[in-house]
Amino acid sequence: MTTDIARTTDEAQIRELLADRAAATKERDARRFLASCAPDVVEFSLAPPLQYKGPEALDRQAVEAWYATWAGPVEVTLTELEITAGGDVAFGHSINRMRGTKTGGFEVELWYRSTVGLRRTDGTWKITHTHDSVPFLMDGSGLAALDLKP
Amino acid sequence: MTTDIARTTDEAQIRELLADRAAATKERDARRFLASCAPDVVEFSLAPPLQYKGPEALDRQAVEAWYATWAGPVEVTLTELEITAGGDVAFGHSINRMRGTKTGGFEVELWYRSTVGLRRTDGTWKITHTHDSVPFLMDGSGLAALDLKP
Repeated sequence: MTTDIARTTDEAQIRELLADRAAATKERDARRFLASCAPDVVEFSLAPPLQYKGPEALDRQAVEAWYATWAGPVEVTLTELEITAGGDVAFGHSINRMRGTKTGGFEVELWYRSTVGLRRTDGTWKITHTHDSVPFLMDGSGLAALDLKP
Repeated sequence: MTTDIARTTDEAQIRELLADRAAATKERDARRFLASCAPDVVEFSLAPPLQYKGPEALDRQAVEAWYATWAGPVEVTLTELEITAGGDVAFGHSINRMRGTKTGGFEVELWYRSTVGLRRTDGTWKITHTHDSVPFLMDGSGLAALDLKP
């Protein structure tokens, strides 16, 4: 149903969207970061709660408050990105590195897993689902695995 | 491009696939659990490492070893499941509850987030990506949030 050319174009558009999202994070531009999301986006974030839905996920002030905990750019690098697109539905997954300095001077380097789900509406791809996480240790410590590297 | 009827059928097939996967987990049937996966599946699991790819994700003995850490059925209940399907690509996300008793007698009740990506090949939906996680506390404790409830 979907030609190879269409699939390649879709994948290129989605790669561009994700690159733009990373650039928005680096510049701590919440408006630009959220522009790639559909109004009904369901977000599974690194931090609690279990999920944010729609307006809660799109709360620009909450994103800006998080950006304000960083002293400078928040560098997110996507590695091993794979995108599967067909028709008007797509998903992608990658292993990401987040790097930056918190306002208290703490240097963060965190590798985490990222999945996005997308839907094309009126010719434009929009993110309708995000899932970012680190695994946790099943040794009874209850600790998140914050120091993993690919 | 995709009719409403086709979309409904796709969604029903995927819901059935996910229900069968939960049933396989309950019965600790690794062969049946893995049958829903494509050979090139990329898995982001609750536990480290960051990812398992293809043959590593499909290692039946590893799944059986994990099942063997449970004293009885591992009940996985999917809630708030939403599926987006179009053409031959789909993804779904849900908030899941895992319940059971470990061999040492420890009672587990864990709520976690689950995302799956699927591709239809030769008329059959197969899982090509899974992402299961809990969030972690950003309070400096490094703890995973293992006691969240929806």
